[in-house]
Amino acid sequence: MTPEFDLISRYFSSPARNAVLGVGDDCALVRVKPGIELAVSTDLLLEGRHFFAGADPEKLGRKALAVNLSDLAACGADPAYALLAIALPQADEAWVGAFAKGFFSMAAQYGVELIGGDTTRGPLTVCVTVMGEVPAGLALRRSGARAGDDVWLSGAAGEAALGVAHLTGRVHLPQAALAACLSRLDDPDPRVELGGRLRGIAHSAIDVSDGLLADTGHIAEASQVSMEIELELLPLTQSLRACPDRALAIECIAGGGDDYELAFTAPPLRRGEVLALATDIGIPLTRVGTVRNGQGVALRDSSRQPVKIERRGFDHFMP
Amino acid sequence: MTPEFDLISRYFSSPARNAVLGVGDDCALVRVKPGIELAVSTDLLLEGRHFFAGADPEKLGRKALAVNLSDLAACGADPAYALLAIALPQADEAWVGAFAKGFFSMAAQYGVELIGGDTTRGPLTVCVTVMGEVPAGLALRRSGARAGDDVWLSGAAGEAALGVAHLTGRVHLPQAALAACLSRLDDPDPRVELGGRLRGIAHSAIDVSDGLLADTGHIAEASQVSMEIELELLPLTQSLRACPDRALAIECIAGGGDDYELAFTAPPLRRGEVLALATDIGIPLTRVGTVRNGQGVALRDSSRQPVKIERRGFDHFMP
Repeated sequence: MTPEFDLISRYFSSPARNAVLGVGDDCALVRVKPGIELAVSTDLLLEGRHFFAGADPEKLGRKALAVNLSDLAACGADPAYALLAIALPQADEAWVGAFAKGFFSMAAQYGVELIGGDTTRGPLTVCVTVMGEVPAGLALRRSGARAGDDVWLSGAAGEAALGVAHLTGRVHLPQAALAACLSRLDDPDPRVELGGRLRGIAHSAIDVSDGLLADTGHIAEASQVSMEIELELLPLTQSLRACPDRALAIECIAGGGDDYELAFTAPPLRRGEVLALATDIGIPLTRVGTVRNGQGVALRDSSRQPVKIERRGFDHFMP
Repeated sequence: MTPEFDLISRYFSSPARNAVLGVGDDCALVRVKPGIELAVSTDLLLEGRHFFAGADPEKLGRKALAVNLSDLAACGADPAYALLAIALPQADEAWVGAFAKGFFSMAAQYGVELIGGDTTRGPLTVCVTVMGEVPAGLALRRSGARAGDDVWLSGAAGEAALGVAHLTGRVHLPQAALAACLSRLDDPDPRVELGGRLRGIAHSAIDVSDGLLADTGHIAEASQVSMEIELELLPLTQSLRACPDRALAIECIAGGGDDYELAFTAPPLRRGEVLALATDIGIPLTRVGTVRNGQGVALRDSSRQPVKIERRGFDHFMP
């Protein structure tokens, strides 16, 4: 570590709060409570692939943590700790200060303690690992869906992908729609509270990072069931309605990723509780389909005909 | 995730063994034993910086895990779990198969279970996060050194850096010396057993990844003490003795990194135990200096004069 990078790593040092030992040693140490399982996830974000070159560092700092918190939410885990490994092309203190500000603001919002990491010189790369706590046996898994379950979606899918479609010249969005889509793309809000509140209600859950059909497909595969998603039930935000290319809007809703909503399944008997939860936490929860026996995920229109989508699953920006 | 990368991620899926839930969900789940603290560390390795372009994938797979296990060893933690996030320029199955083989061979050697990760397309980047278990209160820290402690080094430092010096044309090593140095560089053996056995004996420990003086400097700073390292006590392997440039050899021993030995401090009363441990585990442990009041680390020759080293701390291959 050169002295200039040493300086930068100090931006990310913070005193241990719940950890036994935090940033600054070879390892961090955490004590785990009895009856608790630890949920752990890691995500690697590369410039030009997961975010555009020249991305606003403060928003990037928030998003780098948010996408990991979204994984914890999908397991119904309460966020606790994070590790941040980052490569930077140069020791640009203004950039690092802004990134750290964003990262720590997201961390504070969800009670996350940064306990360790790594800093090196290289092409801009961010690898965050998060750890959360979940009461033993209550984690939400991809494998719990059962035939007959409702399929639910939090918020709305498609806006982040529509923002990318505008930025890459596939469509031209009106100003207000563009602003909404870019806010979703650049500063997603992980559904942490929702994930925790779904423990004991949902049979399975996943976060919509690869696209609604792809991600519900992961649930279907892990649970050995099929799913039918109804196009007319999918929430259509103002921005998606404002998209002049309807086929593209549907592609974004069904196949676009990076929204960090939760898709989950729950038995029909729990509908009332799910809807009450939506009111409680102020996030719309919409029933978008049904789990059936079989395999695969089908998107159907109002006459129950299959809807063809050009791309299934969102592999970020690059071909 | 494109289908080809999806295929590749299957190389890294393995059934959960001790984890409650392993690879394949949004998070992994681990149950932690009572009285145990979890030690966590993450390291980001970039092609061209931490390893040469075209590096042998099997050895790289071993090393990517080894450098993280070395952090656990430095804390006296017993390895348990790992997460692997990897970016690859293309879905080259032969490369991935070899990398996975190396990674899993190192994992098997030290009882590590791969429980999660992330795969994406991009410049070759490997980010491993490891978790280990340590009895509560017994982790080795950088901050525990006390004036009067002996400073110890496992094995020998400097060979990895001397290998780099050969590869970058700074010196020409004889064949046998080169082979030894490259083996240290490309396939380091983390001092996992030593770390665990030092619990209750050592006051402080660190792994020598940045260079002996830099890393003992981290102990000195964290412990608010100074250290005197004696040049004539530092172990000089055959390869280091074979180096035609003596100043370079000393620079490698004192300032070279990537050896993944442990430096630790222990009270003089424990000398017998430390030496018995060396015999027990078959790794030389050498007393190389003394902890004193004050600050900083000084390297002294046999007449107690300070030895000047050109580079302090090893910032990998690139300037």
